[in-house]
Amino acid sequence: MTQAAQTAIQKSDVIVGYRTYLDLIPELLAGKEVMSSEMMKEVDRCGKAIDLAAAGRTVSLVCGGDPGIYAMAGLVYEMVRAHGQAIAVEVVPGIAALNACAARLGAPLMHDFAAISLSDLLTPWPVIEKRLEAAAMADFVIVIYNPRSKKRVEQLTKAREIIMAERGGQTPVGIVTAATRENEKIELTTLEELLSCDVGMQSTVIIGNSQTYLWQDVMVTPRGYARKYEL
Amino acid sequence: MTQAAQTAIQKSDVIVGYRTYLDLIPELLAGKEVMSSEMMKEVDRCGKAIDLAAAGRTVSLVCGGDPGIYAMAGLVYEMVRAHGQAIAVEVVPGIAALNACAARLGAPLMHDFAAISLSDLLTPWPVIEKRLEAAAMADFVIVIYNPRSKKRVEQLTKAREIIMAERGGQTPVGIVTAATRENEKIELTTLEELLSCDVGMQSTVIIGNSQTYLWQDVMVTPRGYARKYEL
Repeated sequence: MTQAAQTAIQKSDVIVGYRTYLDLIPELLAGKEVMSSEMMKEVDRCGKAIDLAAAGRTVSLVCGGDPGIYAMAGLVYEMVRAHGQAIAVEVVPGIAALNACAARLGAPLMHDFAAISLSDLLTPWPVIEKRLEAAAMADFVIVIYNPRSKKRVEQLTKAREIIMAERGGQTPVGIVTAATRENEKIELTTLEELLSCDVGMQSTVIIGNSQTYLWQDVMVTPRGYARKYEL
Repeated sequence: MTQAAQTAIQKSDVIVGYRTYLDLIPELLAGKEVMSSEMMKEVDRCGKAIDLAAAGRTVSLVCGGDPGIYAMAGLVYEMVRAHGQAIAVEVVPGIAALNACAARLGAPLMHDFAAISLSDLLTPWPVIEKRLEAAAMADFVIVIYNPRSKKRVEQLTKAREIIMAERGGQTPVGIVTAATRENEKIELTTLEELLSCDVGMQSTVIIGNSQTYLWQDVMVTPRGYARKYEL
């Protein structure tokens, strides 16, 4: 958590968020009006925050990671726009899954990369396939969000197949599950072995480009310094 | 800056970094051995940090943004590997330019995106062109790092041309210069108008996908919630 995020919460009258996240910051909630929820959906939570802000309160809507990367910021703007009333919104950036997972794996994101979500709930699968093909073909490091859930198990198999058409089976792959949480798990593998690894709802998968290598317990994508500086 | 980064610095004996960044955290440097530099290059700073760590000191190597996104983490691993001695390395993630710039622009990174550096110092230009083409074709939001420097002015012109071949001139574009610094500047424009804007070494440029829209003073890429939830 950044200092800026702490300050934003401290300056707020009301804190709205998913209980799992709010439970991590009890000291920041003291003396605040708190609207937490276990089951309330994103849209409901967001609507509640907007109603409170429209009534003149200063509200922090708390989420995990970075609200600006595949997260709540967009929904907030879409709902404020639909609401019609002028409401000032500030997005406070945070450590997204891609930042946290890259750090845990070593240095896989030293060069151009593409972030792709495999969830086809809100995106047609052919669009996702096209992106996987493009990213694989142009040798991007690929960060896969939402690789698998209980109901969606085939998408990762298909994604791997698409990437394997362009990249060797020995391409390094890093899997980080529940990054920075108590149950964090880090696994380094290869495209060849990916499907035998434990990948779930809390996992992010990073697939190396043609230059990425595994060294000891880390995954590194060089930027070319070695060639330039002759280490 | 995150709490984790503060803690890492507090636990270190020696702090190595570029003076501009160290000047931002005087209170964390009190009582520490500090090796700052204005002109010492990345490789020298990194080598100094590694030598100190090899001698048994606990060293923080401080950089701006996120060391794991186009930054120092990879160089550290490459140099530790070349050094040969066993040295424990931990990467502490931070707010990368893409996180900070996205937050300042609204919510442009709500869907799949590609990060591409236009610097051809360490990467052949044809590789960069291929990535621009792939990202444009597959409708990724595109985050452009190192769009322009005093010596490199043509790359952004070419990049815009490549993207315009796939995407309309009215596609929203956000430019953030010196994000979160005193001289921060935010500009919202379109692909059509991009070249008439002020883009420099401290700028990051985010180009929307086919769904991205400008609304009031922000740039939003919807995830499709509106269709699903009927806002």
